[in-house]
Amino acid sequence: MQMDLRASDAGGAAFAPLVVLELATHAKEEAVTWLLGRIRDDERNGGAELLVQQLQIGGRDDQKTNPNVFLVGSTWHRLLRGAEEVGLFKEFHDGSMRGFTFSNRERFRDFQGDGDGFLSAAECQYIIKHELDTLRARDEAHVPGYPKAKLYPGKSIIRRLQSHSILVQVFPLHDKEELKRLSFSWYRRIKLSFQPLDDIRHYFGEGLALYFGFLEYFTFALVPMALVGIPYYLFDWENYDKYVLIAVFNLVWSTVFLEVWKRCSATLAYGWGTLSRKMAFEEPRPGFHGVLGLNPVTGREEPIYPNAKRQLRIYLVSVPFVLLCLYLSLHVMMIYFSMEVWALSAYEAEPGVLSSVLLFVPSIVYAVVIEAMNLAYRYAAEFLTDWENHRLESSYQNHLVLKVLVFNFVNCFASLFYIAFVMQDMVLLRQSLATLLITSQILNQIMEAFLPYWLQRRRNKKAHRRVWRVMGDKELPFREQVQLEADMSTYLGTFDDYLEQFLLFGYVSLFSCVYPLAAVLVVLNNVTEVYSDAFKMCHVFKRPFSVPAANIGVWQLAFETMSVIAVVTNCALIGLSPQVQAYFPESDTHLILMVVSVEHVLLAFKCILAFVIPDVPKQIQIKLAHLEFESLEALKKKVPMLQRKPK
Amino acid sequence: MQMDLRASDAGGAAFAPLVVLELATHAKEEAVTWLLGRIRDDERNGGAELLVQQLQIGGRDDQKTNPNVFLVGSTWHRLLRGAEEVGLFKEFHDGSMRGFTFSNRERFRDFQGDGDGFLSAAECQYIIKHELDTLRARDEAHVPGYPKAKLYPGKSIIRRLQSHSILVQVFPLHDKEELKRLSFSWYRRIKLSFQPLDDIRHYFGEGLALYFGFLEYFTFALVPMALVGIPYYLFDWENYDKYVLIAVFNLVWSTVFLEVWKRCSATLAYGWGTLSRKMAFEEPRPGFHGVLGLNPVTGREEPIYPNAKRQLRIYLVSVPFVLLCLYLSLHVMMIYFSMEVWALSAYEAEPGVLSSVLLFVPSIVYAVVIEAMNLAYRYAAEFLTDWENHRLESSYQNHLVLKVLVFNFVNCFASLFYIAFVMQDMVLLRQSLATLLITSQILNQIMEAFLPYWLQRRRNKKAHRRVWRVMGDKELPFREQVQLEADMSTYLGTFDDYLEQFLLFGYVSLFSCVYPLAAVLVVLNNVTEVYSDAFKMCHVFKRPFSVPAANIGVWQLAFETMSVIAVVTNCALIGLSPQVQAYFPESDTHLILMVVSVEHVLLAFKCILAFVIPDVPKQIQIKLAHLEFESLEALKKKVPMLQRKPK
Repeated sequence: MQMDLRASDAGGAAFAPLVVLELATHAKEEAVTWLLGRIRDDERNGGAELLVQQLQIGGRDDQKTNPNVFLVGSTWHRLLRGAEEVGLFKEFHDGSMRGFTFSNRERFRDFQGDGDGFLSAAECQYIIKHELDTLRARDEAHVPGYPKAKLYPGKSIIRRLQSHSILVQVFPLHDKEELKRLSFSWYRRIKLSFQPLDDIRHYFGEGLALYFGFLEYFTFALVPMALVGIPYYLFDWENYDKYVLIAVFNLVWSTVFLEVWKRCSATLAYGWGTLSRKMAFEEPRPGFHGVLGLNPVTGREEPIYPNAKRQLRIYLVSVPFVLLCLYLSLHVMMIYFSMEVWALSAYEAEPGVLSSVLLFVPSIVYAVVIEAMNLAYRYAAEFLTDWENHRLESSYQNHLVLKVLVFNFVNCFASLFYIAFVMQDMVLLRQSLATLLITSQILNQIMEAFLPYWLQRRRNKKAHRRVWRVMGDKELPFREQVQLEADMSTYLGTFDDYLEQFLLFGYVSLFSCVYPLAAVLVVLNNVTEVYSDAFKMCHVFKRPFSVPAANIGVWQLAFETMSVIAVVTNCALIGLSPQVQAYFPESDTHLILMVVSVEHVLLAFKCILAFVIPDVPKQIQIKLAHLEFESLEALKKKVPMLQRKPK
Repeated sequence: MQMDLRASDAGGAAFAPLVVLELATHAKEEAVTWLLGRIRDDERNGGAELLVQQLQIGGRDDQKTNPNVFLVGSTWHRLLRGAEEVGLFKEFHDGSMRGFTFSNRERFRDFQGDGDGFLSAAECQYIIKHELDTLRARDEAHVPGYPKAKLYPGKSIIRRLQSHSILVQVFPLHDKEELKRLSFSWYRRIKLSFQPLDDIRHYFGEGLALYFGFLEYFTFALVPMALVGIPYYLFDWENYDKYVLIAVFNLVWSTVFLEVWKRCSATLAYGWGTLSRKMAFEEPRPGFHGVLGLNPVTGREEPIYPNAKRQLRIYLVSVPFVLLCLYLSLHVMMIYFSMEVWALSAYEAEPGVLSSVLLFVPSIVYAVVIEAMNLAYRYAAEFLTDWENHRLESSYQNHLVLKVLVFNFVNCFASLFYIAFVMQDMVLLRQSLATLLITSQILNQIMEAFLPYWLQRRRNKKAHRRVWRVMGDKELPFREQVQLEADMSTYLGTFDDYLEQFLLFGYVSLFSCVYPLAAVLVVLNNVTEVYSDAFKMCHVFKRPFSVPAANIGVWQLAFETMSVIAVVTNCALIGLSPQVQAYFPESDTHLILMVVSVEHVLLAFKCILAFVIPDVPKQIQIKLAHLEFESLEALKKKVPMLQRKPK
């Protein structure tokens, strides 16, 4: 870790700041003192036993900058004990991954001396966050100075301060040196190579590293499809009904792709120690409210909200609302199609400049309406999921993802389904697919990385200019750097990144057999996506806290569902191809029955394939079984030694 | 436990015999002495530390009876330590289920004094079996007296003795008193009540109790279907095309039925302590062979057989063989149908006595051939699965179950599928279904319980007569009882029982909408099945060792697969009904498309239902989470106490 440079800058020689606590500018003095005291207090007194220092602000523009910014650090000894508490898995001297324990610390690989350098900065910051989050109220009835911010024994102090806006934000600091090295090996070097996933994990944590791993894997997996698609596009362009081959290829590809990813992800997660790690008991999310009661699991006092009430809210309000929105979206789509027909007939009746401009009006109106609906729905979904009052952040996230996913799926693909299976117009399908893919890609890249970067740069320049006025053309001093990072926008998690990949996967797997260039476009998009995502993580957003993750979670399910739907659409497209229809000249009935049986066989085959391919590679299974066996044996050996009847 | 009566009978006052070891009649003296020594030896010397006594045989007919029969018992102290070793879960004083530990023994409910009566007889016998199975060779190169029965350090002695036929059998003793009480509350009392599942579990273990629980649940679940079926049958008999309603009811029922069973089974398994119990590391099965090497999981020396070789055997030999058998079975079915046509035409050409007898010939021949094929296939499947050389008994069982299941499914249902969807003859389908159901039920009950019982009775009478000659009309003395039990046939596990229920479930869920009485017949069958199965467990077979089980394992998957197939068949039957076809008078195409879409929606709905209904009831989830939380907390507390840096 390269903290020492900044440490001296911040004041104390032994103090390496890792996490920043920003309290409200006008936070009451007594609350601040109390909080710092609790953070510094001994663990045996229920404190977090961490180091805290106030950020020194310069003499100038005191009015503007917040004086209540604190830097949190820790001793190595405390961090190592924290690593055991959060259940970190690290590499043992024999190469296996084991739960870190302080007493066994010497037997872990890379543990030297006091153990500094053993934990990555991301791990240290994660541990500090965990210690802060689990700092619990004792006998305080409320936050000192804030009688309304009620506390009860066992309540997480940080959560309460957040929910009452006394605590503005907690964020981990960037490490300039390390970041420079990471960004160089990640995206600065223009050469063909894999991403430095281990370094990304080291700096940003497992959740984000898994996203980049998935992005890379998905892109590589698309290459064969793109290679099949290019000659098809070049030599067979007008003969667009010969897509049976590509459709079959699609089917097998999308199944194998997802099954193999599970194995890759298990291998990555094992190496990063998250596969067998047991997650600590989750705290209620900050927004959760209810009547104070005893949690049946922990026995602690905390707000209780009856599950039945939540279920009622979900099934009686949220589900009907989502269905209504879906209906609305479909209705808008139908209006769009009738407007198209109307515009076309107007053009045909009276060809001219005005009516040819009219031809574009429906598409433009529809695009604008769709964007507006997407935005409005996103807000509504967040509001509803919040109102459902989920106890856990994970459950909140799952419900939000599900809601947004279903709506986005319908919004993006409904018109394509309509064109393909109701209008059965393959030329139009291909055109729409190409338009949708290309425009959404370009828009995404702009909205996602370059717009925030530009905004960020403007702020950045302002800060630099301020400093230049005083000190000339030097590097930003540490306190300015902290202020700068505090002002950066917050990365809201991998949700939007995965959603984008999900929709791209949909374009490729559902319909690409009529537009074989789709895979090529997605590959091109993803290559730039790696760079723009990497760039935005390093320079646009605040450093996020590391999120331990063993897999891509609900997204695996979403992608698998998409691949099942892909089997259905591809079979239907095959059935609609003139090539296949030529085999059944006398009746449609035989053709349909044949397509349906093929589809059922393929679905069954898909299930069998998913069942036969183990989710975790054999090698990793053996390692996990070995750990399990050792702990069973240890338990057995303990018994006769301790309890053997004396003879 | 009511062992004392028999204990005094067997000789020693403190010795309660639980398990019988029968060695070969001519087993070499030195091997016997060595084995008994190892069983009696202290645990610290690698022995099992159990009590063994030879069964005293009377002076008469020494030539016939085997002198090498040994009774194994144990002290309570040893059994309690064994309970911790195998990881038994028992009820804690606060009502939760916890892993039993010897040091905490006083805090478990029902633990009194020395702890006798704390463990059920089935648990004691299971522990003794486990101790015998894990009795390992030390430095012996072979079994004394048998140079061919090679041993190596760590090899299970009992497994080696079994594979060399030096050990004939190991079985647990019945407990006459307890058995009498159990059989009275189970099936002797003719009254409507639930089965005493807890008592069954207490006497026979969790595996068997879960089977009887499933049997009961399945029967009760069928009652609504039977109730719907009876009026249908009575008032609507000739109008057999109005089965749309029943088909829809079928669909919903079969999905909900299986999802709710998972919850019931989790509740039962939690109460019996098997839900959260960690299984001990499995030993290789006796028939497993390979080159001696190091097991990567345990680090012990044991035969190693490369997985790749096994996979080759499975995919290159077993799978093609099964497919060939399926093809053969279908071929035989086609021959049967052409024979039927031929017999019918012969009868129509020349009606008479001879030709009307001829009408029955194809069915009879087909029935006989099917039985023969089933039998031959079963042997082939066992041989093949053995040859695949699975390391674990569980993996052997899964592969065997899968092979037998697929073949039985095709054998039983292929002709019904052919009649329903190729011939589309609903009258014939109904007739065949009724014939198959009724004959298979009657045959099963006879083959399964009454035939073995009759054979058993004959043996039993002989034994009684022999005793009567000597002692008159008294109860059998203990040694005769042991001999009698040793001669009883061995219960081979729940495989055939589940298979029967699986096929019955198939009849009900796949086609019963055309023959609504099927559910009624299955309910009647299952009511008698409970009695005959209970009877056969108590009086026909040797007592089986208890098998700890947390669910019905691979059968849950089998039943779920069947219910998916049921959605397809029911939708197809609906599409074939004249009622529905009347809605689409002009073209079949619309009808088929409609049926296919309905089917897809139903399948999707089924998936969502399975996803939304939690597999474990909320109450049990909370209890499990509580245990998990406690162990995490305990771990946390341990750290600061032991490793806190002194200040």
